[in-house]
Amino acid sequence: MALPLPHLLWGNADCVELARTFGTPLYVMDESMIRARCAEVRSAFLEKWPATTACYASKAFLTKTMARMVCQEGLGLDVVSGGELHTALAADFPPSRIELHGNAKSERELRAALSAGVGRVIVDGVMELELLAALAAETGRKADILIRVAPGVNPHTHAHIVTGHTGSKFGLPIEGELLESAVKFALASPGLALKGFHFHIGSQIFENSSHVEAVGRIAALAARLKTRLGFEAEELNLGGGFGVGKLPDFSHSPHSPDKNVPSESHVPLHLFTDAMMEALTRECRARGLARPAVAIEPGRWIVAEAGITLYAVETIKRLPGVTYVGVDGGMPDNPRPSLYQAAYEGVVANKISAPAAEKATIAGKCCETGDILVESIALPPVERGDIVAIFNTGAYNFSMASNYNRLPRPAVVLVKDGRADVVVARQTHDDLLRGDAIPDRMR
Amino acid sequence: MALPLPHLLWGNADCVELARTFGTPLYVMDESMIRARCAEVRSAFLEKWPATTACYASKAFLTKTMARMVCQEGLGLDVVSGGELHTALAADFPPSRIELHGNAKSERELRAALSAGVGRVIVDGVMELELLAALAAETGRKADILIRVAPGVNPHTHAHIVTGHTGSKFGLPIEGELLESAVKFALASPGLALKGFHFHIGSQIFENSSHVEAVGRIAALAARLKTRLGFEAEELNLGGGFGVGKLPDFSHSPHSPDKNVPSESHVPLHLFTDAMMEALTRECRARGLARPAVAIEPGRWIVAEAGITLYAVETIKRLPGVTYVGVDGGMPDNPRPSLYQAAYEGVVANKISAPAAEKATIAGKCCETGDILVESIALPPVERGDIVAIFNTGAYNFSMASNYNRLPRPAVVLVKDGRADVVVARQTHDDLLRGDAIPDRMR
Repeated sequence: MALPLPHLLWGNADCVELARTFGTPLYVMDESMIRARCAEVRSAFLEKWPATTACYASKAFLTKTMARMVCQEGLGLDVVSGGELHTALAADFPPSRIELHGNAKSERELRAALSAGVGRVIVDGVMELELLAALAAETGRKADILIRVAPGVNPHTHAHIVTGHTGSKFGLPIEGELLESAVKFALASPGLALKGFHFHIGSQIFENSSHVEAVGRIAALAARLKTRLGFEAEELNLGGGFGVGKLPDFSHSPHSPDKNVPSESHVPLHLFTDAMMEALTRECRARGLARPAVAIEPGRWIVAEAGITLYAVETIKRLPGVTYVGVDGGMPDNPRPSLYQAAYEGVVANKISAPAAEKATIAGKCCETGDILVESIALPPVERGDIVAIFNTGAYNFSMASNYNRLPRPAVVLVKDGRADVVVARQTHDDLLRGDAIPDRMR
Repeated sequence: MALPLPHLLWGNADCVELARTFGTPLYVMDESMIRARCAEVRSAFLEKWPATTACYASKAFLTKTMARMVCQEGLGLDVVSGGELHTALAADFPPSRIELHGNAKSERELRAALSAGVGRVIVDGVMELELLAALAAETGRKADILIRVAPGVNPHTHAHIVTGHTGSKFGLPIEGELLESAVKFALASPGLALKGFHFHIGSQIFENSSHVEAVGRIAALAARLKTRLGFEAEELNLGGGFGVGKLPDFSHSPHSPDKNVPSESHVPLHLFTDAMMEALTRECRARGLARPAVAIEPGRWIVAEAGITLYAVETIKRLPGVTYVGVDGGMPDNPRPSLYQAAYEGVVANKISAPAAEKATIAGKCCETGDILVESIALPPVERGDIVAIFNTGAYNFSMASNYNRLPRPAVVLVKDGRADVVVARQTHDDLLRGDAIPDRMR
């Protein structure tokens, strides 16, 4: 009698069982991995360097449960819209630990932020600054703000996710008159308390030189403003962008799907934070400045590896030169391959110990040529009904999901110690018709 | 006293009023334009050539109301998923006029198609063929099918939307043993009635040579199969892919925003259909074949120009070298600039007669550098609160919309003769939390 093949475990839960119980496609998030990354933020940064804070960049992945975990782990929350703020507040996230971002904040969003009493508004431009000052005056609330600057560095990453270059839609150029007049305006506004500055140079960055360069420029800015305006920044927010590879860190896990899988996991946080803090300390000392408080905003770095997506194999098509394994999800639950040519890795969850038999391309279900999840991956013999697990889908998958092709959004399951909880229910076909009405005249 | 500036009209409705009444961002679809395109399908194709049908490719834009209009206009409906089928059936679309596509159809989708009695299943590969034959046998239903072929032509368009090349994830190569054995299998399956073949070579194609080339290849296939297997195809489906430019056809409209706007509208349908029908007639005659019935699948071509998206201007940022006009939507309601570098055009709806004052870049609200709706467009002096209209968003905008950054999906309004009906309600912040639950152990 053949022994059953071992299955991929995630959060110590059997992925094949998860697929059977909750259906596919399925987002599965490992709670312990998320909490381990938060712990690394504490040990490598918050506890190592005094006067520091860290805000989880929630656009990477936000549900009420995620907000709750972030809160329990002692981090703040970076939100970029009224919708993210609403979710945070619905999870009772302390408003004082929330910061509001956005290049085109609406009056309604700014009012919601003032009314909730968020800890920081990161102001993106002059018009927003004027609007916020007026709203603060009108409502009698005071807003603690940072001004976002574009430090003019160009990290090596995909053009769509570079954000801190000169001429970016985000922030004000660190050089020039525009920023200085914004600072003067903020200082003169009774409803605004200017705490300092923010930069974010981009996403998926794997080496620290651009971050360090940006730190040098923001320190120079602080020195210049102290000299010229007598304004001393109390706080600098150095953003995020810390890269994550194609595979999670299996080093502490007994559940590595295959010992031959190369470890291509996240960069250690201290690679960035130590270098930035050392540079900032050095720069401040050289310029006669007190080192300001420092905040960072890891997003993907905290959640990407914790997430996998489970798909069922619907079809296998062996063509001359290429074998397609067609699965029951794709671009609507993970648009990143189409958007950024993002590379993913996967395994057959019910055959993790089976030797590779052929190279195949894992194709999504969308009627769209670009819907390819993984190009040319070595897989064991695949059959219809097999469960494919794609790694490192914890960030920018659920949060970017669409209903393209009218595919319902998958459920999100949180796993821990073998136990699984649905934290976001799967959409149904009827959910897709919510709010859809035929006008009377056309009935 | 200054006269009020004229506003952009859409379906004879004042766009500024629409924005005020229904909020922004707002998808606005002109019913008459949709029906005019359907009428062009009838006059240029269905009524001109005998034994023809046309199926609207609903992945471009599908709501119950759209399905209803397509039905009233006498077209069929091409669906690519159980979700699209569900929507069509919810609008009482006649199942016999529905065709089901998809490269990774699930057993559940195939069962739903059989149970509904859809007119055609376009089978994508051998494994699906075997599954469908088994399900037909099990349920005692008979499926009328086409087999999708990849004709091996490479039209000039974006790589992500080329679909008919050799090695595509779609269909079976038109040359070789695989297709022939699939045909034999279908012919031997009592539950399957093989009607013929389907190809779709890609999207956004502006000249007809690739379509004509594909017609030649499929005619050669038909001739080969007649000789070798005695099978005569009754029906050929030549797909869609008919291109649409950046601006709608204003030629019949009194509402052109600016006479200097170049007309860069859709290609006339007959450019493709006449050339394909002439080529097919010629090829069939030369090969001694009766000309099969012919189907086409226009999607974008029917709806793209009918749709505009209205946005409110939230912020204007004048930087050295570039002015950003930040609006209250973007990538979540229109991912096409990020996905395909798709180019759009727009106007300030409340200032359509004002002369251009400066070049600006219309930036979306997303915390994402790639979220730029229009690069470098000439605009009149823009102020916060202005309403920007982006043209030709009727296709692949609503259907691809996400909640990225937790932005609620805009409403869809159908306009006709100055009257507006909400056909899909705007999502609320609470809608974003639907199905979102914190596990008890974490409360």
